[in-house]
Amino acid sequence: MPFKAISSPYLATFDGSFQYGDFPTVPEKIAKKKKLKSKLAKEINKLSTLQRVMYADNRYSLLLIFQAMDAAGKDSTIRSVLSGINPAGCQVFSFKQPTTEELDHDFLWRTNKCLPERGRIGVFNRSYYEEVLVVRVHPDILDSQQLPNHIPRADIWDERYESICNLEKHLVRNGTIILKFWLNVSMEEQKNRFLSRLKEPSKHWKFSAGDIRERGLWNDYMQAYEQAISKTSCSWAPWYVIPADNKPYMRLTVAKIIRQSLESLDLEYPTVNADKKNMFKEMKEILEKSS
Amino acid sequence: MPFKAISSPYLATFDGSFQYGDFPTVPEKIAKKKKLKSKLAKEINKLSTLQRVMYADNRYSLLLIFQAMDAAGKDSTIRSVLSGINPAGCQVFSFKQPTTEELDHDFLWRTNKCLPERGRIGVFNRSYYEEVLVVRVHPDILDSQQLPNHIPRADIWDERYESICNLEKHLVRNGTIILKFWLNVSMEEQKNRFLSRLKEPSKHWKFSAGDIRERGLWNDYMQAYEQAISKTSCSWAPWYVIPADNKPYMRLTVAKIIRQSLESLDLEYPTVNADKKNMFKEMKEILEKSS
Repeated sequence: MPFKAISSPYLATFDGSFQYGDFPTVPEKIAKKKKLKSKLAKEINKLSTLQRVMYADNRYSLLLIFQAMDAAGKDSTIRSVLSGINPAGCQVFSFKQPTTEELDHDFLWRTNKCLPERGRIGVFNRSYYEEVLVVRVHPDILDSQQLPNHIPRADIWDERYESICNLEKHLVRNGTIILKFWLNVSMEEQKNRFLSRLKEPSKHWKFSAGDIRERGLWNDYMQAYEQAISKTSCSWAPWYVIPADNKPYMRLTVAKIIRQSLESLDLEYPTVNADKKNMFKEMKEILEKSS
Repeated sequence: MPFKAISSPYLATFDGSFQYGDFPTVPEKIAKKKKLKSKLAKEINKLSTLQRVMYADNRYSLLLIFQAMDAAGKDSTIRSVLSGINPAGCQVFSFKQPTTEELDHDFLWRTNKCLPERGRIGVFNRSYYEEVLVVRVHPDILDSQQLPNHIPRADIWDERYESICNLEKHLVRNGTIILKFWLNVSMEEQKNRFLSRLKEPSKHWKFSAGDIRERGLWNDYMQAYEQAISKTSCSWAPWYVIPADNKPYMRLTVAKIIRQSLESLDLEYPTVNADKKNMFKEMKEILEKSS
């Protein structure tokens, strides 16, 4: 495979043994906010340079998948980590409830259309993983998916994990590097953030009653995440389970993993052969002689 | 799986033993042209009805893949077999040389975008199989595909067969039934058809010098087809190797296989529950009382 996960304390295991309880929502040691921010700025600088080489190299694309409970900080992490990148080389897609056209295709169709081109970073804010997360917690959603009746409902999740693993293997082999982030927020911190959304008028638009209903299904969601991550984390398409209770730390951690992953690729500016160099020399002379 | 190949003398084996020499380009016994045409008309009628049930049922879609050497009759078979179908339920896509945008994605991306919606028939005139046919015969095309350098060129074909098999399994499970047709024309018959294209002004537009160059690579193509079909024919996504030297026979045979395959599905008009029936009764009364 053209990519192997870079190591990190937040890397989920590859052997199907992942348990969400083993991963912290708060890191052990946290630097001061100011220090975290200045480190993040440095990471973003490096990321921006790496993205330019990736664009010139034009063999790889990078797909970043963000999944999390509500208020874990998906939007703000995407904004903070990618704001320094040339938007011409970066595309963000948010996947909400599927449209009728999307439901009329297989469950990977709507995200497949949005896969990043070579040389670009693509970001999925939620993704095809919703099909084994929210749909698993609310299996009645399957009724609206117009599926053939051939398989017992209990087996559908294993089929979906398999489809996802096969897709990711295919993509990585063909140059799309995939990093998957679960922003791991605690139930307590989610409560604080919801309360702050209810208090501050500038955050009101982010709140919906549905969020509270989903919060009531917390344990079901944790089990769905645990299953999904343990079935789909592998060295060529790893899951990172990022402590999300401290936002500056989370952003820095995500940025660092992306930067290190890009550095691990054999990215290079395309080299110019002798013929082309001679042509350059000729063109230079013509330009210099011209008025 | 929700689908199993219907049997036919032209069904390729599923055990990797397919050899193109075992399949005829001319059928043993051929009825008169008039009889073949009237049988085809009957098949098209049945197909048209089945397509309407499939549309109402809205769980399955049907993907028809046509691959063949030049002048085997892909275009005319698609035209003849599908002209009686409601075009609202049928979409044909022809895949020629990939565009720059398409090359900037994995090799399945451009066809994935065009997959048929539930209830519809999708037709691929050439397909992702070109990536293991024309590209295999001309491996220098790989140089323009900007792939990562991690695998030896010799292994790339097995990776591609695997990606294709995994994709097809995923699609069939999720309701897209796939039938693959290789229109098997003989070298002699291709020569006759090329000569006729050169003679008849109304067929001139179909001729290109490239066709003759590819004809020179006939054996390489036969080997590429043999490999591709033996690696990707399975009971849920079968290949049919249709004798193509007699066009009316070929068209009838293709139509029959499609019709029988649709008949084998559990297609049905959605049933209406008691609540809805009561509502219908009520609406009928309102309508009858109205002016």
